[in-house]
Amino acid sequence: MYFEQIKTDGLMQWSYLVGDGNEAFVIDPRLDMGVYLEKAGRAGLQITAIFETHRNEDILVGSAKLAERTGATVYRSKYEDPGYTYGTPIGEENVFTFGKLTLRPLHTPGHTLGHLSFALYKDEHAYMVFTGDCLFYGGVGRTDFYGEENLEKMTGLMHDSLFGKIRPLGDHVLVMPAHGAGSACGDGLEEMPLSTVGREFSDTAVLPPDKDAFIALYGRILHKNPAFETMEIRNLQPQGLDCVPYPPVLTALPAGARRVDIRDLFAFSAAHYPESLFIPGDLLSSYLGWFVETSDPIVLIADNVAEETIRLAVASLARQGFDHLAGIMPDGGLSDAAGNAQTLAHIALASPEQYEKMDIAPTLDVRKEDEIEADDPVIDRFCVPLQELRERTNEVPHTQEPVYVLCQSGERATVAASYLAALGRDNLQVIQGGLSALENANGKAR
Amino acid sequence: MYFEQIKTDGLMQWSYLVGDGNEAFVIDPRLDMGVYLEKAGRAGLQITAIFETHRNEDILVGSAKLAERTGATVYRSKYEDPGYTYGTPIGEENVFTFGKLTLRPLHTPGHTLGHLSFALYKDEHAYMVFTGDCLFYGGVGRTDFYGEENLEKMTGLMHDSLFGKIRPLGDHVLVMPAHGAGSACGDGLEEMPLSTVGREFSDTAVLPPDKDAFIALYGRILHKNPAFETMEIRNLQPQGLDCVPYPPVLTALPAGARRVDIRDLFAFSAAHYPESLFIPGDLLSSYLGWFVETSDPIVLIADNVAEETIRLAVASLARQGFDHLAGIMPDGGLSDAAGNAQTLAHIALASPEQYEKMDIAPTLDVRKEDEIEADDPVIDRFCVPLQELRERTNEVPHTQEPVYVLCQSGERATVAASYLAALGRDNLQVIQGGLSALENANGKAR
Repeated sequence: MYFEQIKTDGLMQWSYLVGDGNEAFVIDPRLDMGVYLEKAGRAGLQITAIFETHRNEDILVGSAKLAERTGATVYRSKYEDPGYTYGTPIGEENVFTFGKLTLRPLHTPGHTLGHLSFALYKDEHAYMVFTGDCLFYGGVGRTDFYGEENLEKMTGLMHDSLFGKIRPLGDHVLVMPAHGAGSACGDGLEEMPLSTVGREFSDTAVLPPDKDAFIALYGRILHKNPAFETMEIRNLQPQGLDCVPYPPVLTALPAGARRVDIRDLFAFSAAHYPESLFIPGDLLSSYLGWFVETSDPIVLIADNVAEETIRLAVASLARQGFDHLAGIMPDGGLSDAAGNAQTLAHIALASPEQYEKMDIAPTLDVRKEDEIEADDPVIDRFCVPLQELRERTNEVPHTQEPVYVLCQSGERATVAASYLAALGRDNLQVIQGGLSALENANGKAR
Repeated sequence: MYFEQIKTDGLMQWSYLVGDGNEAFVIDPRLDMGVYLEKAGRAGLQITAIFETHRNEDILVGSAKLAERTGATVYRSKYEDPGYTYGTPIGEENVFTFGKLTLRPLHTPGHTLGHLSFALYKDEHAYMVFTGDCLFYGGVGRTDFYGEENLEKMTGLMHDSLFGKIRPLGDHVLVMPAHGAGSACGDGLEEMPLSTVGREFSDTAVLPPDKDAFIALYGRILHKNPAFETMEIRNLQPQGLDCVPYPPVLTALPAGARRVDIRDLFAFSAAHYPESLFIPGDLLSSYLGWFVETSDPIVLIADNVAEETIRLAVASLARQGFDHLAGIMPDGGLSDAAGNAQTLAHIALASPEQYEKMDIAPTLDVRKEDEIEADDPVIDRFCVPLQELRERTNEVPHTQEPVYVLCQSGERATVAASYLAALGRDNLQVIQGGLSALENANGKAR
């Protein structure tokens, strides 16, 4: 038996290539699907089937292109059709065999109405279950995509799917979800390498058997990245790339492109091209969609950024549908600009010691609501989560006096400050090291 | 939580680096232990403990050197002392914590008398069990190291360890053994990526609950690689390498070194330096010890062999204690030798079609007893398993007439023929493609 979990960094998406004998299948292939061709080819396997657990919204899938390259059939749920233009509808009556392996679809609605999980049997024993966005490690898929009015219904369906379809497979069955900790498709997921059905259901605080308690716990509206809307539409049409192409390398800033700076936080704070949005290269998937349209032209500013990080950043853009990358600037531009005395911008930093001495200090806290505690050592705080900043910019006072910007570590605060500065705000100071540094300076152990 | 399974190819040995918070432990580190330093360092973890499941016999362990580099403590079983000169003895009363992880030793004799498994608890739930050479995927550790006279006792202990210590941990617990399929520490292991306690115990044909049935199934004497004896002794003394050094690259054959040819089988058959032993580079760990002493000087002949395979071959030698590698010859030697009309040797190949037409054809079958079937299409067969060939060379007739050499694919037959040819036998013919080819030529589907 061949088994590989393909972890796509940035998106925290896990796809799977599984085979036996000389046949293999893929679960939820990513956009740049050459990776499956290479791995299957080297293992002497022919990919004959591609399964989608649901119409994905946080990644572009490469199913159609992978099918074209391999002759495989794409299978997707018959229980819901958001307007697919490809794929063969399947349900629980369908059974698929690959050598000694058998794969059985399970209808597990909750994240979406048509969501499928797939139980894998080896020598007729249940062995693994591919749970897509139904069951994760230490959490479940979000149930808020059908709006407030359907939240209770969808969360109830999720409960029934988990306790009616997944749990009966048996404690010994390995759980293989579509996402790990850090994904926007669930909340509070646990950083764990592996898990089993028995392990997940053993903690009733995480998976309450009581349906009302379950709905109370998970019936929540979460932030939805605007880029998801684009991907939901594009995933109905054939997509796919053999690999993400290396973009043009530029030596001058292109006109009209959004400047996205993926350098080190301190390097960015000290000097950057005016109007640049700061986002660390490995976090583009998490943050970019909140500030930039997928249709916007983009230039990545990447002086002294590791090649590995640049490649991940470029791939992350493609995988979320940011298709208008004008180019990257990996080398030298900023130093030259400084040497030529061109105007560079910077972000003012306030040290925790400076901040603590203030009597009046309007402070923008950009963390999420559930991170905030009443006794945080923050002066004159007002809260706008980073995800809502674009819609709520006018809540940030545009005064002569400084506005301090805070998050846990200083990273999201710098993203926020860079966004506001690009809009012309010149009164922002990022609290260096964020709340962690404030608490250390304060001697408060957490 | 950090978790990584480090798979060492060739030996099919699986070691583990696991951590939480900023502390980590290693289970059964291999000789070249720099790999754990690098992975732990990059993950921001300090290795504070090293656990040995048992005194290993099929690999050299790097525990002592890893302890020296990290300041970690080496822990080993208190239930048996074969003469250790390092390590702190521990038993079931000891408990170790690493962040939110707890590790508890379990005394699981059978493979050895003192063998330990380690149950890992996360947030106080049993999560994984590191089973060493007790429980593998689809099989158990061999129980014959204490001789025929203790075979029933040791196999009975193995049964009690499995059903008394491992199974009670619960179906949902992940099984993390020290070896995968292909290891010489178990027999008939299954090629599986992952497994759980529930999965392993679900098949009563593999793990019979009845003790007598279990002993009947597993109470067997297996071949023991002579290199194991050396490793058993050396593993009592501190060992370890930061990495396996790249050996001298030679352009001429060194005097007095055993010639081990790791090239392609067909290349070897057509032309090789006289007296060379043929062993594929990725199978050195499996075969070399049957023919060469760990103290013998060795030269690896590797024209046109992939660099990756050369590195694996060199590492495999070091990891099993073949410390006298005079050098490698990766390039050009053989072509030059042919061009200069030096004497090169070859192995005669018989095609299946030629062989089938023979009336009399003494045939040496070097497969293991359990591979042989009475109706194999083999003429005048006599059997000497490859592992026993060195001791039973005199059973191979040294006649004018050819002796045919057979295995399943032709690979082991070529190893055998090369060994015999180096002893001066000049009447050998390898049946090309082995039994598989004979059966194809015969039209017999298996």
